[in-house]
Amino acid sequence: MIAAAVARRLDLDLGRIAGGTFSCRFLGDLRGSFADRERYEEALARGNPLIYSVSTLESAAGDGDLSYGLGVLMPGKIGREYFLTKGHLHAWREAAEVYVGLRGHGLMLLEDEQSGESKLLPLSANEIVYVPGHTAHRTINIGTVPLVYLGVYPANAGHDYGAIGERNFRNVVIEEASSPALRDRMKL
Amino acid sequence: MIAAAVARRLDLDLGRIAGGTFSCRFLGDLRGSFADRERYEEALARGNPLIYSVSTLESAAGDGDLSYGLGVLMPGKIGREYFLTKGHLHAWREAAEVYVGLRGHGLMLLEDEQSGESKLLPLSANEIVYVPGHTAHRTINIGTVPLVYLGVYPANAGHDYGAIGERNFRNVVIEEASSPALRDRMKL
Repeated sequence: MIAAAVARRLDLDLGRIAGGTFSCRFLGDLRGSFADRERYEEALARGNPLIYSVSTLESAAGDGDLSYGLGVLMPGKIGREYFLTKGHLHAWREAAEVYVGLRGHGLMLLEDEQSGESKLLPLSANEIVYVPGHTAHRTINIGTVPLVYLGVYPANAGHDYGAIGERNFRNVVIEEASSPALRDRMKL
Repeated sequence: MIAAAVARRLDLDLGRIAGGTFSCRFLGDLRGSFADRERYEEALARGNPLIYSVSTLESAAGDGDLSYGLGVLMPGKIGREYFLTKGHLHAWREAAEVYVGLRGHGLMLLEDEQSGESKLLPLSANEIVYVPGHTAHRTINIGTVPLVYLGVYPANAGHDYGAIGERNFRNVVIEEASSPALRDRMKL
C-alpha cells in the first residue's frame, strides 16, 4: 500500500504535476462549446491558441482511491463569452469533485443533470468549489491571467464529455458592462 | 443534488474554511505524541500553546462524496522533535487522502498499518502528498512559519485516532545538524 504514497510537485507556471499526464485543448478542439459560432470561426481563422491544459495523476481505481488534476485556463473571450473548459460529468454519476483555486480569477458553471438547474460559483485563489455528484461542471476564466486550479475526485469517477458536449450547458457566462453575467443560451 | 454545490473561502491566516467546523489542539492535548516526555512536561509547565488547528467541511457521507479540511500546524520543537499532528488512520481503511501544501515547509510521516514500513515525504506550498489507504499519516512542521495544508478525502472515510495513538508511529523526525532526520523511536 505505502508504495503508492508519493509527493508530487505542482508547477503552476507550466501547469504540470511532476510525473503526471499532460494534455492540451486548443481553440480548434472547442468547436461547439462557445455560443457565438461566427466569432469562433473568425478567431480560429486567425490562429489556434492554447485555451487550457490539464495535468492528471490517476491512481489505481480502487474503492477509496483518489485522483487529481491541475488545470490552467487562459484568459480571453470569444465575442462576449469568456474562455471556458468543455465541461464534463463523471461517468460514475455519484462521484463528487473538490476544486481548489490556486491562482487567478474564475467561475465554475454547474448544471444539475436531472433538474437542469444552474449555479455559478467563484473559483479564485484559496477558494474551494464543491461539485456534488450528477452535476456537469465547467471552469471559466473571467480574469486577465491564467486561472490555475486543482481538482480532486474519486479515482473511479471517470469522465463523461459526451453527455454535456452534445447539447452544451443551458446557460452561458458573458461579459456585460465589464462584469460576468449568466444568460440563457436560447435567449442570447 | 446541486443544492450541495457551494463555494467556500479558505482563510489561510486564520486557518478557517468559511462555514466549516474549527477545532484546536494545544500542547496539553498531545501528551504521548512526542518522544521526549521530560521535555514535553517542561514545556507544558511553561504554558499550553496552540500546536495546530483543523477546519473541516464534511459532506453527506454518501458513496462518491468528498470532505476536506484545512490544517495549520505551528512551527516549533519539543527537544529535537518538530511540532506534529497526532496522526490518524481512516476508519474506512481503504480511504485515501490527497494533501495539498498551501504555505510553509513541512513533511508527512506515513506508516503502513500492515507492514509497519515508514515513508517521509515533503509537504510544502504547491506540493501534493498522496496518502493511500491503510496508511497512518502525521504532518510535521520543519519550517519557521505555520504550515498550512488542505486534505481531501472520501466523505465516508472517518477518522481513527486510537489505533496510532496507543502505540504512536515507529519513527520520529528530529533535528540533526539543522536538518530533519528519520529515526527509530526505540533507538533514540
